[in-house]
Amino acid sequence: MNIRVAVSLATVLLATGATASSDAIFAPDGQLNFPANYREWVYLSSGLDMSYNKLLDMPGHSMFDNVFADPASYHEFLQTGTWPEGTILVMEARGATEKGSINHRGKFQSGDLMGVEVHTKDTRRFPGGWGFFAFGGTDTQPARQIPTSADCYACHQQHGAVNTTFVQFYPTLLKIATAKKTLSPSYQP
Amino acid sequence: MNIRVAVSLATVLLATGATASSDAIFAPDGQLNFPANYREWVYLSSGLDMSYNKLLDMPGHSMFDNVFADPASYHEFLQTGTWPEGTILVMEARGATEKGSINHRGKFQSGDLMGVEVHTKDTRRFPGGWGFFAFGGTDTQPARQIPTSADCYACHQQHGAVNTTFVQFYPTLLKIATAKKTLSPSYQP
Repeated sequence: MNIRVAVSLATVLLATGATASSDAIFAPDGQLNFPANYREWVYLSSGLDMSYNKLLDMPGHSMFDNVFADPASYHEFLQTGTWPEGTILVMEARGATEKGSINHRGKFQSGDLMGVEVHTKDTRRFPGGWGFFAFGGTDTQPARQIPTSADCYACHQQHGAVNTTFVQFYPTLLKIATAKKTLSPSYQP
Repeated sequence: MNIRVAVSLATVLLATGATASSDAIFAPDGQLNFPANYREWVYLSSGLDMSYNKLLDMPGHSMFDNVFADPASYHEFLQTGTWPEGTILVMEARGATEKGSINHRGKFQSGDLMGVEVHTKDTRRFPGGWGFFAFGGTDTQPARQIPTSADCYACHQQHGAVNTTFVQFYPTLLKIATAKKTLSPSYQP
């Protein structure tokens, strides 16, 4: 089997949901391998300079975040309105630029990755069901889990529209979760 | 057909439910059928309130655009640095909201589609090689080609970084086109 066939086959497996479990992305020591193929996963949405903290301001610093879901879990969400075991969500951050080429206003994405964060569901592995991991810049070395004392866990638990995830910011999925009545009782639009 | 082509084709069929050629998306009368599955295609990038016109301002009106490529053409681009015959690029516009749920700053995408535009390559069908089509709001009826006298054709011809497309705003593809030396001679960063 040549490498192109192997790569194409891997694509097929991802596209068809043959690797629904996130097991494959964990190293034996529990660190998370970089999800190399995530740019070909299903896109959920983007934000620009979002902040959940009224006091936090970052002048002179502008970036987009783009969120992707592994295809098998995305297709499951379309059916059920929630995330299955093994779900892998990836958020990447990219610099936002105003002036460039023929653009005069607004912002477009430019340059290298500024970081990649992963939120993955594995109820046997993580006490709250989900684990967070972060890869800095263009670093693709395996990452340790972010400690569960970090703010991201409590914030997602309290405010996530569906199963501790911020589906309120993914318009195509919010519509589905609303129709399937899978929104968290505590969720406030 | 060799195995690699067969597998790649299978990937496309599985991932998009369509064929690699854009023929399938044209109605017999030359109108373009709505690319129903584009949200599962490969995401290229997003912009917010971008404007190529120094004088044009749209106060009180804020929106994101998200761009997607059909998977087969995207994979071809990774190999060659340019777009093959049959390429379909889709740009959707979505409302941008600042305050909502726990968000206090910046913008996230919200609500229904505000429109979908398609740029597709078919050198037998279009004199300049590419055609533009627009679907308004959530309209999924077949669309007529935008007349070639419209600004979009001349602007993409003059300023598109690769083969009349705005690869300068898609950072992952710009890197590939730069490496493969497929940037248009007239392109200015």
